Amino acid sequence: AMELWQVPLSFSRLRMFPFFDLAHYIASILALKEQRGVVEVSVRSPLACWFSAMLYCFGGSVLSSLMLGEPPVAFLAKTINILLASSVWYLVFYCPEDIVYRCFSFLPLHLLVAGMKEVTRTWKITDGIAHADIVYKDAWLIMVVVGWARGAGGGLISNFEQLVRGVWKPETNELLHMSYPVKATLIGAVLFTLQHRQYLPIARHNLVFLYTIFLVVFKVKMMLTRCATSPLAPFEAAMGQMLFGSQKTPSKVKGEGATSSNYSSVCDQPSEHHHEGAKKKQGKKTE
Amino acid sequence: AMELWQVPLSFSRLRMFPFFDLAHYIASILALKEQRGVVEVSVRSPLACWFSAMLYCFGGSVLSSLMLGEPPVAFLAKTINILLASSVWYLVFYCPEDIVYRCFSFLPLHLLVAGMKEVTRTWKITDGIAHADIVYKDAWLIMVVVGWARGAGGGLISNFEQLVRGVWKPETNELLHMSYPVKATLIGAVLFTLQHRQYLPIARHNLVFLYTIFLVVFKVKMMLTRCATSPLAPFEAAMGQMLFGSQKTPSKVKGEGATSSNYSSVCDQPSEHHHEGAKKKQGKKTE
Amino acid sequence: AMELWQVPLSFSRLRMFPFFDLAHYIASILALKEQRGVVEVSVRSPLACWFSAMLYCFGGSVLSSLMLGEPPVAFLAKTINILLASSVWYLVFYCPEDIVYRCFSFLPLHLLVAGMKEVTRTWKITDGIAHADIVYKDAWLIMVVVGWARGAGGGLISNFEQLVRGVWKPETNELLHMSYPVKATLIGAVLFTLQHRQYLPIARHNLVFLYTIFLVVFKVKMMLTRCATSPLAPFEAAMGQMLFGSQKTPSKVKGEGATSSNYSSVCDQPSEHHHEGAKKKQGKKTE
Repeated sequence: AMELWQVPLSFSRLRMFPFFDLAHYIASILALKEQRGVVEVSVRSPLACWFSAMLYCFGGSVLSSLMLGEPPVAFLAKTINILLASSVWYLVFYCPEDIVYRCFSFLPLHLLVAGMKEVTRTWKITDGIAHADIVYKDAWLIMVVVGWARGAGGGLISNFEQLVRGVWKPETNELLHMSYPVKATLIGAVLFTLQHRQYLPIARHNLVFLYTIFLVVFKVKMMLTRCATSPLAPFEAAMGQMLFGSQKTPSKVKGEGATSSNYSSVCDQPSEHHHEGAKKKQGKKTE
Repeated sequence: AMELWQVPLSFSRLRMFPFFDLAHYIASILALKEQRGVVEVSVRSPLACWFSAMLYCFGGSVLSSLMLGEPPVAFLAKTINILLASSVWYLVFYCPEDIVYRCFSFLPLHLLVAGMKEVTRTWKITDGIAHADIVYKDAWLIMVVVGWARGAGGGLISNFEQLVRGVWKPETNELLHMSYPVKATLIGAVLFTLQHRQYLPIARHNLVFLYTIFLVVFKVKMMLTRCATSPLAPFEAAMGQMLFGSQKTPSKVKGEGATSSNYSSVCDQPSEHHHEGAKKKQGKKTE
Repeated sequence: AMELWQVPLSFSRLRMFPFFDLAHYIASILALKEQRGVVEVSVRSPLACWFSAMLYCFGGSVLSSLMLGEPPVAFLAKTINILLASSVWYLVFYCPEDIVYRCFSFLPLHLLVAGMKEVTRTWKITDGIAHADIVYKDAWLIMVVVGWARGAGGGLISNFEQLVRGVWKPETNELLHMSYPVKATLIGAVLFTLQHRQYLPIARHNLVFLYTIFLVVFKVKMMLTRCATSPLAPFEAAMGQMLFGSQKTPSKVKGEGATSSNYSSVCDQPSEHHHEGAKKKQGKKTE
C-alpha cells in the first residue's frame, strides 16, 4: 500500500497525456467560446476560429518557442495532440444543439475539467524552466520568463490571439492588467526556478504537489463562489506599498483605474446584474 | 522534338530566376501601388514604401522563416533579387510621368505579368514544403502551413505590412476573410503535401503542371471578366455546410457578414459604379 | 605621453561596461519617463513599466536577435546589466520626491548622460555589424540592417513598446517618420558596413572616433539650443529631390504632411508655447 509521504512523489510522476491534456483543451476552448463575438467568427471563418483555438491551447508553447528562437510552429508536429485539440474545438463549436458545450457547462464537469487544466499548468512551468536551463545554462531570469510564458502563454499573447478574430484592444494587456492565473503562474515560475537552483529547502516533488494543490483549490473556490477576489491580493497590496509606495485608496483610483480595481476585488452579490458580471469575468479568468 | 507527355516534366524544371521572379516583383509592386494612400507614403517616406514593397515581394520568405525559427532577414542575403525588386519598386513609384506603371497597366502586359507571378506561387509552395520536410521530418501539418506561408505570405502578413505604411485594420485579416489567392495557395499546399507523402496517385511534375495551369487560367479569367467570383465558392459552400452546418442564406448574413458575402460572389455589371468596385477588388486580390 | 594621433585608437578601445552602459540606461529611462501616461502605468502596473524600460534599454538587442533568428530574451542572460538597468528604473520611477529624476534633469548632468549614451550607439552599431557578418558572410544589406536595428532598436520597435503600456499609435512609426537618432544610426550603419567591407579609405578606429564625435556634438547642440532641426535635413532634401523627385514646397505638404514637415525643421522660439513643444520633441528624440 502506498503511504502518505509517497503521494507527492507519485503525483509528480503523473503523465499529462492524454487525460490532463484533453482537460486543458476542453477548458481552454470553453473559455474561448465564452468570449464575445467568437460564435460569429466560428460561422464566418472556421479557419480563424480554429487558429484562435490552437493559440488558446498551445499559446504557451508558441510564446516560449519565440522567446528561445525556436520554431513557433513546433507544436504542430505533435500530430496526436493537434488532432485531440481540433476534435474538441469541432465538438464544442459545431456540435448540433450545442450538446458538448452545454454538457461541459454543467458545473461538476466544468470543475473537474478546470481543476485538471490547472494541473497541466504546473507541468508546463517546470517543462519551460527545464528547457530554458538547457538552452541558457544558469540564466535564472530567462528560466523565470520562459517558465511563465510556457504556463500562461495563452493569456500573455491574448492581444494577438484576439487580432486573429478581428478584435483589437490595445488599451489593455496581461502585463498592464494581470489576471489571477497569469499572476499565479508568475509566482510558480519564480518558485520553481528558485527550487531548480536549489535556493529553496524543499524537494521538487513536494513543491510540485503543494503548488498544484494551491492552484486547484483556489481555482475551484473561485468558480464555486463566483468570486473574482484574487487570493494574492493582500500580498500584492503589501508588496506594492513596500516596494513602489502605491497606496491604492479608493479615492485615488476612481477614474480610469476603477475597472482594474474592481477587477480583482468584487465578489458576487445575490443580484442578477452582478451575477452576469462575475460570469463574464470567470470566462476571462479561465485564460 | 519534344512530345506532349514531356511537357509537364520540362515545365516542372523551369527556373524562376530571373524572368518569373521579375514578373512576381512587378505584379506585387503594381498591386501595392493600387492600395489607398501608398502614393503619399512613397513621397513622404521612401524607406517605408521600400520596406512595404519588399514585404509584398518577399513576405512569404519572411513569414516562413519566422515560423521555422530562421532569420527573417535571410531574404536580404540574395543581393541580386533585392536589387531587381528595388529597381522595379523605384521605376514603378518614381518614374517621371508614371511611365512604367502605366505601361504595365496595359492589359495584355498586365495579364502576362500576373500569369507569370502565379507560376512562381507553385514553385514557392513546393520550396516551402521541401524545406519544412527537412527541418521537421514527416510533420505533415507543418509542411502544409509552411508551404502556405511561403506561397501566400504577402497576404497573410498584410496587417503588419499595412502597419509599416501607417494603416491599421484590425477588424479584418486574411484568416477571417480569405481572399481567393490565399485560398488557392492553401489548397495547393495541401495537395503538394499529400503528393510529397505519396498519398496522391500522381507524379510530382504532373501535379505542378496541372496546379499551375489552374492558377494561371483562373487568374487570367478573373482579370479579363473583372469578376471576383472565386472558382472555389461552390466547393467551399458545400464543405461549409457539410462540416460546419453553416447555411449562408441571404437573410442570415445581412448585417455584418454582407460585405464578406458580396466579396466572393459579385460579378461585374455594365455600370460605372460596379466597375470601380471590381477594379478595387482586383487590386486587393492580386495579393 | 599619449600623442594626438593615438587618441582615436585608445578611444576605440574604450569599454562600455559599466559607466557608458549605465549612462545609456539612465538616458533611456529618463526618456521613457517623459512619455505621456507612463507615470500612471508605473503606479498601476510596475511590471508593465519595467518591461517597457527594458525594451527602451535593450530594444536594439531584442530586435537584432529577432532579425537573426536568435533568442530575443538573450539580453536577460546578462544578469549584471539587467540589475543595473532595473536599479536605474526603480530609482527614476519610485524614488521618494522624484529626487533621482530631478537630479538627472539638471542640464549639465543630463548633457553628460546623453552624450555618453551616444557613445554606446557607435559600439552597438559596430557590434551588430560584426555579429551579422559572422552569421551571414558578406551579406552587406543584412549587415546594414542588423547594425541599424542594434543601434536604434528602441526607436524602431516603439510601436510595440507602446503597446506594452496600453498605447497604440498605428498612424506613425519610425520608418514613416524617422526621428533624428534613427536616421543618424542608419547612416552610421551604412558607413561602418562600407568600412567593414573596406570600401572606405579610413581606418576603423578613426571612423569610430569621428562618427562618435559627430553624434555627441549634434546631440549636445540639439539639447542646448532646444532646436529640433536635424543636421541631416539639407542632405535629405537634396537626396530626396535627386532620387525621388520630391519637392517639399510648403503649399504641397499642407494637410497631413504638415506635422512631419514641422517635425524636422522648427526651432525654438522665445515663447512659452514653442518652448513646451520643443521640450516634448526633445523627449521623443532621445529615443
